[in-house]
Amino acid sequence: QGILERLDAGEIVIGDGGFVFALEKRGYVKAGPWTPEATVEHPEAVRQLHREFLRAGSNVLQTFTFYASEDKLENRGNYVAEKISCQKVNEAACDIAREVANEGDALVAGGVSQTPSYLSCKDKTEVKAIFRKQLDVFMKKNVDFLIAEYFEHVEEAVWAVEVLKESGKPVAATMCIGPEGDMHGLSPGQCAVQLVKAGASIVGINCHFDPEICLETVKLMKEGLQAAKLKAHLMSQPLAFHTPDCGKQGFIDLPEFPFGLEPRIATRWDIQKYARKAYELGIRFIGGCCGFEPYHIRAIAEELAPERGFLPEASEKHGSWGDNLSMHTKPWVRARARKVYWENLKPASGRPYCPSMSKPDGWGVTKGAKELMQQKEATTEQQLKELFQKQKV
Amino acid sequence: QGILERLDAGEIVIGDGGFVFALEKRGYVKAGPWTPEATVEHPEAVRQLHREFLRAGSNVLQTFTFYASEDKLENRGNYVAEKISCQKVNEAACDIAREVANEGDALVAGGVSQTPSYLSCKDKTEVKAIFRKQLDVFMKKNVDFLIAEYFEHVEEAVWAVEVLKESGKPVAATMCIGPEGDMHGLSPGQCAVQLVKAGASIVGINCHFDPEICLETVKLMKEGLQAAKLKAHLMSQPLAFHTPDCGKQGFIDLPEFPFGLEPRIATRWDIQKYARKAYELGIRFIGGCCGFEPYHIRAIAEELAPERGFLPEASEKHGSWGDNLSMHTKPWVRARARKVYWENLKPASGRPYCPSMSKPDGWGVTKGAKELMQQKEATTEQQLKELFQKQKV
Amino acid sequence: QGILERLDAGEIVIGDGGFVFALEKRGYVKAGPWTPEATVEHPEAVRQLHREFLRAGSNVLQTFTFYASEDKLENRGNYVAEKISCQKVNEAACDIAREVANEGDALVAGGVSQTPSYLSCKDKTEVKAIFRKQLDVFMKKNVDFLIAEYFEHVEEAVWAVEVLKESGKPVAATMCIGPEGDMHGLSPGQCAVQLVKAGASIVGINCHFDPEICLETVKLMKEGLQAAKLKAHLMSQPLAFHTPDCGKQGFIDLPEFPFGLEPRIATRWDIQKYARKAYELGIRFIGGCCGFEPYHIRAIAEELAPERGFLPEASEKHGSWGDNLSMHTKPWVRARARKVYWENLKPASGRPYCPSMSKPDGWGVTKGAKELMQQKEATTEQQLKELFQKQKV
Amino acid sequence: QGILERLDAGEIVIGDGGFVFALEKRGYVKAGPWTPEATVEHPEAVRQLHREFLRAGSNVLQTFTFYASEDKLENRGNYVAEKISCQKVNEAACDIAREVANEGDALVAGGVSQTPSYLSCKDKTEVKAIFRKQLDVFMKKNVDFLIAEYFEHVEEAVWAVEVLKESGKPVAATMCIGPEGDMHGLSPGQCAVQLVKAGASIVGINCHFDPEICLETVKLMKEGLQAAKLKAHLMSQPLAFHTPDCGKQGFIDLPEFPFGLEPRIATRWDIQKYARKAYELGIRFIGGCCGFEPYHIRAIAEELAPERGFLPEASEKHGSWGDNLSMHTKPWVRARARKVYWENLKPASGRPYCPSMSKPDGWGVTKGAKELMQQKEATTEQQLKELFQKQKV
Repeated sequence: QGILERLDAGEIVIGDGGFVFALEKRGYVKAGPWTPEATVEHPEAVRQLHREFLRAGSNVLQTFTFYASEDKLENRGNYVAEKISCQKVNEAACDIAREVANEGDALVAGGVSQTPSYLSCKDKTEVKAIFRKQLDVFMKKNVDFLIAEYFEHVEEAVWAVEVLKESGKPVAATMCIGPEGDMHGLSPGQCAVQLVKAGASIVGINCHFDPEICLETVKLMKEGLQAAKLKAHLMSQPLAFHTPDCGKQGFIDLPEFPFGLEPRIATRWDIQKYARKAYELGIRFIGGCCGFEPYHIRAIAEELAPERGFLPEASEKHGSWGDNLSMHTKPWVRARARKVYWENLKPASGRPYCPSMSKPDGWGVTKGAKELMQQKEATTEQQLKELFQKQKV
Repeated sequence: QGILERLDAGEIVIGDGGFVFALEKRGYVKAGPWTPEATVEHPEAVRQLHREFLRAGSNVLQTFTFYASEDKLENRGNYVAEKISCQKVNEAACDIAREVANEGDALVAGGVSQTPSYLSCKDKTEVKAIFRKQLDVFMKKNVDFLIAEYFEHVEEAVWAVEVLKESGKPVAATMCIGPEGDMHGLSPGQCAVQLVKAGASIVGINCHFDPEICLETVKLMKEGLQAAKLKAHLMSQPLAFHTPDCGKQGFIDLPEFPFGLEPRIATRWDIQKYARKAYELGIRFIGGCCGFEPYHIRAIAEELAPERGFLPEASEKHGSWGDNLSMHTKPWVRARARKVYWENLKPASGRPYCPSMSKPDGWGVTKGAKELMQQKEATTEQQLKELFQKQKV
Repeated sequence: QGILERLDAGEIVIGDGGFVFALEKRGYVKAGPWTPEATVEHPEAVRQLHREFLRAGSNVLQTFTFYASEDKLENRGNYVAEKISCQKVNEAACDIAREVANEGDALVAGGVSQTPSYLSCKDKTEVKAIFRKQLDVFMKKNVDFLIAEYFEHVEEAVWAVEVLKESGKPVAATMCIGPEGDMHGLSPGQCAVQLVKAGASIVGINCHFDPEICLETVKLMKEGLQAAKLKAHLMSQPLAFHTPDCGKQGFIDLPEFPFGLEPRIATRWDIQKYARKAYELGIRFIGGCCGFEPYHIRAIAEELAPERGFLPEASEKHGSWGDNLSMHTKPWVRARARKVYWENLKPASGRPYCPSMSKPDGWGVTKGAKELMQQKEATTEQQLKELFQKQKV
Repeated sequence: QGILERLDAGEIVIGDGGFVFALEKRGYVKAGPWTPEATVEHPEAVRQLHREFLRAGSNVLQTFTFYASEDKLENRGNYVAEKISCQKVNEAACDIAREVANEGDALVAGGVSQTPSYLSCKDKTEVKAIFRKQLDVFMKKNVDFLIAEYFEHVEEAVWAVEVLKESGKPVAATMCIGPEGDMHGLSPGQCAVQLVKAGASIVGINCHFDPEICLETVKLMKEGLQAAKLKAHLMSQPLAFHTPDCGKQGFIDLPEFPFGLEPRIATRWDIQKYARKAYELGIRFIGGCCGFEPYHIRAIAEELAPERGFLPEASEKHGSWGDNLSMHTKPWVRARARKVYWENLKPASGRPYCPSMSKPDGWGVTKGAKELMQQKEATTEQQLKELFQKQKV
C-alpha cells in the first residue's frame, strides 16, 4: 500500500530520524557541508542506520539524499572525492534504502531539499533543472513517493513540488520554518496553502525547531488550510533538541550549533509526549529530523502502540516506560520502573556553570553587531572576540 | 606489537567507547539486564559499532562480552532466547572483534566484569570458575590481551586478575569506583596496589563517573602505587556524562539513570579536555565507557594527534576545532570555526524548568527513606510517591 | 511645582518603591492581608522608609494607603487592632508622607487601589463610595495629587479615576496587567484610552510583572493612545523581580510568591537598564513597586543623572557602576570597578538544585487540576500533594 | 542576666543581622570602604535597623562598629567627613545600641574586627593599640560583652581577644574562615583552640560563607576543642547568601560580590533550616551576618520557638510557615499556607540566561591570569577584558 492509501485509511505513518547528525557522530558525514557522499564511500554505515530506524518502527525510509543536489555537491566539492558524481550518490542512496525497506514493510521516499542555486538568485528554470536531475534518479530507481523538505522559502518549495509532481507520484512537502513563517515573511498558513495548491498531498514542518515549536507551526498550517478550505495530510519531523530560545531561523543561530547541542538532546520521554501531541493535533505522518536517533523513533512507535495495535521490533529490547528496570538489585532503581517516574522527572544537566537558555547569534543580536556582520566580516581574532562580547550583552 | 610493547615504548593507546549504551540507543541491547546477546542475534550491528570506533581511532577493540558471564546471562535468562548459550555469545563477540580489528591496526581485548555470584556471596572458587569459562573462550579465540573491568569490590577484581593471569597474556584491571574507594571501604590507592600485586600490568578506572572524577581517582591510584613503589601503566575509561552530583556509587544512583541522562552528555570539546588532562596525568591507555560514541573517541585521537603524529581515519569527516564551519553562509556560524569559541562555550540545556544538579537516590537520601527501602520495599504507587517526596526534600 | 507642571516641562519624575514588601521584611506588614496599619502602629518605621526613598531620589512619596480602603481593612479585620479605624490609617499615612516630603523637594500622592467590594460584585455606587472615603482624607490632608493604582479590571479603575477627579487634583492611574490585558479581556491600549477619557492625566502599569514585561505593556498603552489621538503622560512602577515565566495574572501565581522570590530579585544594574529603556520609550514618571528597595530607586536616579543633571543624596554612599571598589586590596575585586563588568555579569544563583523557571500555578495548570481547584477545594494534605504533583507535570 | 549566664543556663541566644549590607541597600553605607560613619551622620537609620532586629528576636545588639578602628577609618578617610573622629563613631554606635536594647531585653556587644594595620605588617604592639582604642570607648559606655569578629588570621584574632580580655568582660570571637582554615593554613580546630586559650568564652564563625559551609566549619571547631579537652560556647553568624561555589576566601572572590548577589539571597525557609541544624550541632549563639535582614532573624526565632517557648514581637506580622496565606482569594495561593509546601519548594531564579554556579575570581583562576594580576595590574579596558576572558575559561 502506498503512502496516500495508508494515510487516507487513517493509519499512523512513522517517519525516520536525522541521517546527517547521526552519521556525523558515527564518523561518516562532515558537519558544515553535511553532504551524503557516504552512500558511495561507506554504504554499510548508511545501510545499518536505515536498518536501525526500520527496526525502531519507521514505515518510511528516506533516501539519504539530503543536500545531494548537483549544485550543492559541487559547491562543497573539496569535501567530495571527484570521482563521486551527484548521480552516483543519489543512485546508491536509493539502492540502500530499497534494500533495507525490503527487509520490512517500509516505503522508500526520495527526498530533495533547498539548493544553493536558489539562494544565489538563480531563476526558476535553473532551480527546477537541479531538482529534475535528482528526480530522474528517483524515477529510474522507482521510489514509492517523494518528499520536498528543508525549505526556508516557500517559493523554492513550490518549485520543488511542481517538479516532483511531474512524476505522477505522491508528493510531501515540509518547510524548516517556525511560527513566524518563511524568510520572505509568509505565514505558515500561507505556506501550506501554496504547497497544497502546487500539488503536495502531505504538508508540514521538519528540522530547525524542537517538537513543541514544530507542532505549534503545523497547527498554524492546519488552520491556514482550513481557512482556505483545502485538504492535505499533515506531517512533522522536528529536531530532537530543546530549542525554546531559538530565533526565527532556528537552531543554526544558537551558539551551540552544531558541536555543543548535547545538553539539549531530547529524552525518549520527551519524544513520547511529542508523539501524543502530534497525534492529538491530527498529524498522521510523524517522524523526526536532526538529533533523532533510532531510540527516539522507537519512542514514537511505543507511544502510539495502543492506537496502532503493535510494537516495533526494537521494543523487544525496551520495556514500556522503563519497566525493564523492575529487576534491578537496588530498590531505588526498581522504583524507576514506572511511567509516573519518567513523566515527572526534570532531568539535571550536571553542568552548574552553564545557563539553561542562550541568546541566538545573528538576527537575535544587537543592531550594531548585526550591521558589522552584514557589511563586512570580522576577520581578526580580536574583532571576533568583540563581536561575541557585543552579542552576549 | 602487543599492548605492553606499545605502552612500554611510551605510545598512547586509545580505547573504545561504551557498547551497552550505544547499542541500547540503536535498539539491540536492553537497559536493565544490559547483556550482549546481540553478538549472536544481530552481529552486523555489533560489527558496525566496532568499525566506527576503529575508524575513530581506537587501538583496542574490546570483545562485547560485558555481563556475558554464565551466571549473569542465566540470571537475566528471560531476556535471552534459550538457545543462545553463554559460550556462543562470547565466541561470537571474539570473532566480530577480530574481524574488525583486522581491518585496521587494532588489538582485541577479552573482557570480564563483576558477577552476580560474587554479590550473592558465592565463594572464591565458584566466582573464579565463572571467570574461567569466559577465559576459555578468549584463549580458544586467541585474543591479544585481557581486561578485568567494572568491579566495585577489589576483592572480586583481584580474583578475576588471578584467573586471567593463568593465561600468560597481559592483564589490565579497572574498577568502577570514585575517590571514596571500593564498596568495602578500600581507597583507590589500596585497590591499585592489590591489583598490581595480583598481576595486573595496567590499572585504572572505568564507568560510573565523569572524566573529571575518574581522573581524580586514577591520580589517587597512581599515588598509591608510587607510595608502594610499584609500577604499572595507567588506564581511564570514564562516562561521557557530567556527574558532579554523584554519590559513592556513581551515576546509577542519579535520578536520571538510565533514561534521562541526555542533558549530561559530554560534548567533543569536553572529551578533548579530558584527553589532555589524562595525558598530562601520565595515563597512556585512554578510552571511554557508557555514553562514549565514536565521535567522542575521535575527540581523544584529535586532541592527542600532535603527540601521536597522525589523525584517525574518521577525521576526514571532521575539522579540527570546528574549522569545517569556515565556509558557512552565515558569518556568525563561520565565526564558530575557531578553538577559542568552542573552548569557552558554556552550552545551554534549553531546559529552563530543569535544575543543573540532582540529589542522588539511595545512599544520598534521608535516613528514614533509606530504612524504608531496605527493610521492606514500597509496593504501591502511593508508597512510591511518598518515597520520592521524601528523597527530594 | 505640581506633578503636571513637572511632566509638562519634560522633567523626569522618579517614583518610590514598594512599601508592603519592604516593610514585610522589616517586620511591620503581614503578607497575605498586606494592609498598612503600620502607619498607626509603627509610624517610625514607615517614616524611615519614606526617608530612604526620598534620599534615594524619589520625587513623589506615595501615602502608605495601599489596601487601606474600609472594606479591605474590615475584611482583614482580624489583623487590625479594632481601635485602628480606616480613617486613622489614612490620616497617619498622609501626615508621615508630608512630614518626610517637606525634608526634601518631593510631592505627596494619595493612593487608592482595587477593592474587595468590586470583586464581590458590589455596584458602581457602592464601590465609588469606598474610594470617596479615602479621598475625603486626602483632601483634608491636602495631598499634591492622586494615584489610582493596582487595578486588574479597567472598569473599577475608571470608577476610581472618576471619583478622584472630583477633587480637581491631577490624577494618575496604573493597572497591574501585562500585555494580555485586563481580567475582562480588554487590551492595554483599550485600558489606557478608557482611563484617559475618564480623566487620568498620567497612565501606566504597576506591580505584577518584571520591568521588561511592564515596559512592553506600557508600550501597548502608548500605541493605543496614539491610535485614539489621545495624550497622556506615561508611568511605570514594575516589580523588582524577574518574572519571565508569569502567566496572565503575574507573580502571584508563581509558586515562589510571596516567600520564595529571593532568587528573582533584580540587581541595581537590572534596574539601570530598566530606567534607560523606560526613558527611551518616552516614560517620564519612573518608579517601582514590590521588591523595589531604596537602592533600586537610587539606580533609576543614577542612570538618568546625565539627563537630569544631578545625583540623589544617597549617591554619596555609592559609586557609579561600582567605582567604589577601585581601592579594594584585591586586584580582581578592583577589576570590578567598571561599567563593562557589571553590565555583562550573568549572576549565578548558588542554587544548583533549583530550576531557572517555574510553571505558574492556577491558570497555567492542567485542566483537571484547575477544575478540582475551582469546584471544591483540596482540604487534606494528601489532596494537596496530588494537586502539586499534577500542577508540576 | 549576662551573656554567659544565659548560655551556661542552656538558653538559645539569637544574634542580629548584617548592618553594612542592609544599610548599603538603604543608602547609608558605602560598599568598598564599608565603614560605619552612619552612626554619626544618620543615627535614625541605624537606630531603626537595631529596632527591627530587636523586634525580630535578637537578644544581642552589636554596636555598629564594624571596620571602625582608627586605622581603617583613616585609610578610608576620603569617605568620612573629617570632623567625624573614630571616637565619635564608636561612641555614637554604643549609645544607639544601648538606647534600643533598653526598649527590650537585649544585651549590647561591643565589636572589633580585623585591621589594615595587621595586613600591612604592623607588629603586635601596634595592632593591639588599635583594638585598645575601641575598647576604651566600649568600657566608657559600659557594653555588656565584647565580640572580636571577622578575622581571617587567627594570630590577629588572638591579639584582639587578649586586648578585650583586659576588660574583664566576657569575650566572644569569630573568624570569617571556611573548612580549609585561616589564611596562614591553620585548621578551624586549631583556630578554636588558640582562641579559647587566649580567653574567649564563645567561639565560632561569621561572614564569608553560607549557612551550610559555616556550620561545617563550626563543627570542625567543636571537634578541635573536644580533642583538646577545652570547653567553650559555640556561635555562628553566616551569610544569608548561597555560596556553594566559593573558594577559600569566601564570597568576596565570587564574581557577583558585592553588587550582583541578589539571586543568592536565602529565603526565610533556608534560614529556618539553618537554625535547626545549628541547634542540633550544639550551637546556642545563633545569628547572621551580611545579607541577614530582620525577617531572616525572625526566621531563627520562629524555628526555635518550640525550644524557647515564645515568639518574637515581629511574628505578630508573620504566620508560621506561610499560614497567613490561608485566607487568600485564590485556592492555589491558599494551598501555599503549609509547611510541606515551603519546605519542598525549589525556587526558580527567573534568570534563564544565568548559570547556577560561578567560578571564583582570584585564587580560583588560572595560573596565568593570577600571575598577571599579582605582578602588575591590568590597567586598560582591553587588558581587563582579556583577564576576564581567561578567568572564565
